[in-house]
Amino acid sequence: MSRTRKEIRDICVKTLEEKMVGTAPENIESGRGFYKYFFTNFPDLRVYFKGAEKYTAEDVQKSERFEKQGQRLLLACHLIANVYDNEEVFKAYVRETINRHRIYKMDPALWMAFFSVWTGYLEESGSLTDEQKSAWMELGKEFNSESQSHLKSLNLPHT
Amino acid sequence: MSRTRKEIRDICVKTLEEKMVGTAPENIESGRGFYKYFFTNFPDLRVYFKGAEKYTAEDVQKSERFEKQGQRLLLACHLIANVYDNEEVFKAYVRETINRHRIYKMDPALWMAFFSVWTGYLEESGSLTDEQKSAWMELGKEFNSESQSHLKSLNLPHT
Repeated sequence: MSRTRKEIRDICVKTLEEKMVGTAPENIESGRGFYKYFFTNFPDLRVYFKGAEKYTAEDVQKSERFEKQGQRLLLACHLIANVYDNEEVFKAYVRETINRHRIYKMDPALWMAFFSVWTGYLEESGSLTDEQKSAWMELGKEFNSESQSHLKSLNLPHT
Repeated sequence: MSRTRKEIRDICVKTLEEKMVGTAPENIESGRGFYKYFFTNFPDLRVYFKGAEKYTAEDVQKSERFEKQGQRLLLACHLIANVYDNEEVFKAYVRETINRHRIYKMDPALWMAFFSVWTGYLEESGSLTDEQKSAWMELGKEFNSESQSHLKSLNLPHT
């Protein structure tokens, strides 16, 4: 049975209740934790983080840069989940995200791949039911679809 | 009678239905229109836009820079309206906005002032009931409050 955007939104927002943004230590850790998971499990992708190409999870833990980067990433995930049922706003946020990442010359396949990493992090650091995981992957497919259209319209590599 | 965050959210989101983000000409114009209104009515604030200190509304109209800037601003307003009822996400987005504006060394009073300009634009370019205007101003007060706290925590000038 296919789910509405509002249903997907509510499921994804709910998964983030235990990963709230904020300035308290547990909020900081929810953001930084993503990069610890990411760098441990996908070390090849550290190449996109200049100066941190050899960072271990321990280096991330001590890094102010990844404290901030972690909050930014976490906030972005909250935003895409919260606005998923406002389709044009969601798509505009995707395009803006692509614009901001243009300078990093990323492999365009990474936009979809991100959602496997992200759901992997949610799974590892808390819990994620099959229904929650598939909601995030469905949101990710839409994110990726708008990403690739926008990359194409910018005459940049796309999948 | 005081309104809940959800009520304020719904009112503000509704006012933006006629100012949707997007790539069609009318969406582009909804963003660019803000800067035409802004530069016409608050010419002293053009000083924050390096290279555009003398821009008229006509210059804004022809400018690719303000086409993009307009969409970014419009998206930001959609985001703050849509997430207003998710208080921690709203506040995290405010802090991120402050972080990104740090380089412009803005007068801290401008964060509250923005919402007078913004509601002025909505009023001039469409319509805004008293209820809608007061909902935006209430959201603006919360935006400003988190802005000033965050500026203070960064040891930057604040009101």
